[in-house]
Amino acid sequence: MVRAEIITIGDEILYGQILDTNTQWISLELDKLGIKTVRKSSVGDQIDEIVQILNEAHKRADVVFITGGLGPTKDDLTKKILADFFGCSLAYHDKALQDVTDFFAKRGRELSDLNRDQALLPTKCTFIPNKQGTAPAMWFNELDTIWISMPGVPFEMKSIMETEVLPRLVKHFQLPVIVHQLVKTVGIGESYLSDLIQDWELQLPSHIKLAYLPSLGIVKLRLTSFGDSAKSLHDQISHEFEKVMPLIKSYVFGYEKDELADVVGKLLIKQKSTLALAESCTGGYLAHQFTQHAGSSAYFLGGVLAYANEVKMNQLGVSSKILDEDGAVSDSCVIAMAAGVRQMTGCTYALATSGIAGPEGGTPDKPVGTIWIALAHPNGVLARKLTLGGTRVQNIHLTSLTAINLLRRFLLNDLAE
Amino acid sequence: MVRAEIITIGDEILYGQILDTNTQWISLELDKLGIKTVRKSSVGDQIDEIVQILNEAHKRADVVFITGGLGPTKDDLTKKILADFFGCSLAYHDKALQDVTDFFAKRGRELSDLNRDQALLPTKCTFIPNKQGTAPAMWFNELDTIWISMPGVPFEMKSIMETEVLPRLVKHFQLPVIVHQLVKTVGIGESYLSDLIQDWELQLPSHIKLAYLPSLGIVKLRLTSFGDSAKSLHDQISHEFEKVMPLIKSYVFGYEKDELADVVGKLLIKQKSTLALAESCTGGYLAHQFTQHAGSSAYFLGGVLAYANEVKMNQLGVSSKILDEDGAVSDSCVIAMAAGVRQMTGCTYALATSGIAGPEGGTPDKPVGTIWIALAHPNGVLARKLTLGGTRVQNIHLTSLTAINLLRRFLLNDLAE
Repeated sequence: MVRAEIITIGDEILYGQILDTNTQWISLELDKLGIKTVRKSSVGDQIDEIVQILNEAHKRADVVFITGGLGPTKDDLTKKILADFFGCSLAYHDKALQDVTDFFAKRGRELSDLNRDQALLPTKCTFIPNKQGTAPAMWFNELDTIWISMPGVPFEMKSIMETEVLPRLVKHFQLPVIVHQLVKTVGIGESYLSDLIQDWELQLPSHIKLAYLPSLGIVKLRLTSFGDSAKSLHDQISHEFEKVMPLIKSYVFGYEKDELADVVGKLLIKQKSTLALAESCTGGYLAHQFTQHAGSSAYFLGGVLAYANEVKMNQLGVSSKILDEDGAVSDSCVIAMAAGVRQMTGCTYALATSGIAGPEGGTPDKPVGTIWIALAHPNGVLARKLTLGGTRVQNIHLTSLTAINLLRRFLLNDLAE
Repeated sequence: MVRAEIITIGDEILYGQILDTNTQWISLELDKLGIKTVRKSSVGDQIDEIVQILNEAHKRADVVFITGGLGPTKDDLTKKILADFFGCSLAYHDKALQDVTDFFAKRGRELSDLNRDQALLPTKCTFIPNKQGTAPAMWFNELDTIWISMPGVPFEMKSIMETEVLPRLVKHFQLPVIVHQLVKTVGIGESYLSDLIQDWELQLPSHIKLAYLPSLGIVKLRLTSFGDSAKSLHDQISHEFEKVMPLIKSYVFGYEKDELADVVGKLLIKQKSTLALAESCTGGYLAHQFTQHAGSSAYFLGGVLAYANEVKMNQLGVSSKILDEDGAVSDSCVIAMAAGVRQMTGCTYALATSGIAGPEGGTPDKPVGTIWIALAHPNGVLARKLTLGGTRVQNIHLTSLTAINLLRRFLLNDLAE
């Protein structure tokens, strides 16, 4: 079993000013490869603390990941410390210098001396390019250990891991065959899901392990198996998932890297349909769920950010009678909003949201978390009431997921009514 | 200086199935008390790994926080290990047994043997009650170190820390005063900022430390100082920030917990102004920057998600001539969009975006990352071209920040032209 240690360097994480999400992400990726994380550590921007953890880490691990401390400023110490630790010097690396020069040229910005120094690397390292930023990553094979130093900016680190480091690890180590498969659900909580599938869980063969990976509104089920043949492990896991599928079918929106809004977008494209939105309480977040995915312009027409009541009336044709009598947070209002934006844009389907996301604005009748959503389709309009109990941002997120899931189930003819 | 180490115990965190937010929270609380976190570590549910980290931790720290491993199940090992480590036995603790009995009685549930055993504590510990759950916390004063073991469930841990542990720490240690202040900048990269303020940075008194905290589009500057008087430290740090402010004033949008869109929203409210948006490439994300903050309905009217050209024409009045001759990604198009949504909603200010966020859709003339933004105001319309080089989501994020910052600087009369 290959053992890994993950180290973050930086006062910001140590003192808690930044939440470290890198080590979780790295350990999940290692887990997929069958590499066992044995320790995660966080140290500050202090030479002695960094040297101490380097000395400890390679006694515990075959591969040590280090993130942070690679920025261009004075408090970024990692490169100098690694050079000293491995007994070499820092020198400009041709390819790194070319990369950082190109990075700035492409953006029409001048290369400062500080930025040029990002190409100064310990001479014993293997240079690992960073396509997303200016601080390159480094790979060392020293002291019977592989050392990987990467910038701490999450999107830079992830890109480097996916394109460079993970493939190199697979080449370098004899890794066991490990197979994971993910099934992704929406619209059911972890404990309900667990109750629903407990008999299936108990009958799983002992070499297949189940994990629940919950996030707000979404629960992923992961089956993992170790063995010799990837094909046979895949087949076994697929077979187990097939057995449980009848129980959870309505909740399953996808597999592996599928994302809910993107799955729904692809359904729309397949059905040659288009979508528009009328957003009040979700305030643009629902649209972003679709438009963050490449290719969304093939089905997404746009819509109206109907925050103020005047916009609901003037752009969407919501009557003042509805707003006066039922209020903006009502089934009649979201129905009129969805129908209005559908007529306005000529889309096939329209979603609308209106509610009290909080923390202010609740009333005894309509407390914070009272939210209506509607779906206008070629034969009418559906509305649903949600009663949520989260923070403002959580309520916006859950409302958006629920609206997208309503459309998904409608497109799949999977709604009860 | 009192030094702290924070340890999480549990396979779920080590293998990445759960994101650890406890250690960040604890370190922020310690920081406020002037206790310096020197190491954060995460180990699995393995006796040897846990004993190893205990042996290491008290050599580095005066106080060691341990979360996790206190549940009622077999893989929860912490209590047994701590008893062995401190050379004592486990015994039922009267008050702990009373608490867990009451906890179940209050909820009308039967007390199982497993749950009764939650009252088994190492005889050398000081019992710390857990009002939110069944696993008590423990305080040890052994090996010249304070050891605090708490359950890993975040709301239980936080309640125990706030009501029991933090007050005990203040009593036990002679704590210094520590003061942090944050200044937040937008529109300038970390290395440019560092170049700009390097003379100021070099003249900082040695007891005041500067840190750069960068994220995509935003760089925070943090000054930290230790001493005896909070007032005097605050004054000294404020004085240093005042000195640097003339150099960075245009980039500074706020302090401490300020967020860019919220700061701009408050400026709009102060000026009794309103805002509407016409979003193409940002696809709702720009609106969400404003609407995620409570109180945004005081100035945010809404707008148009103008993804399809038909929506740009029909809702915003962009002419087919502009779309045919200049295209949707052009200064004339964003100017027409901003002016159109301003007229439509009657807002004071309107922002518009249109561009190629990627990864597809680029042309030789207009490669991916070519983006136009516009600001319509009472006396005209400004447009700016951006040339970005990130992923789709990064380009959307940076475009939104840049548009909000354009409005901020306009509202402050801080634009060059």
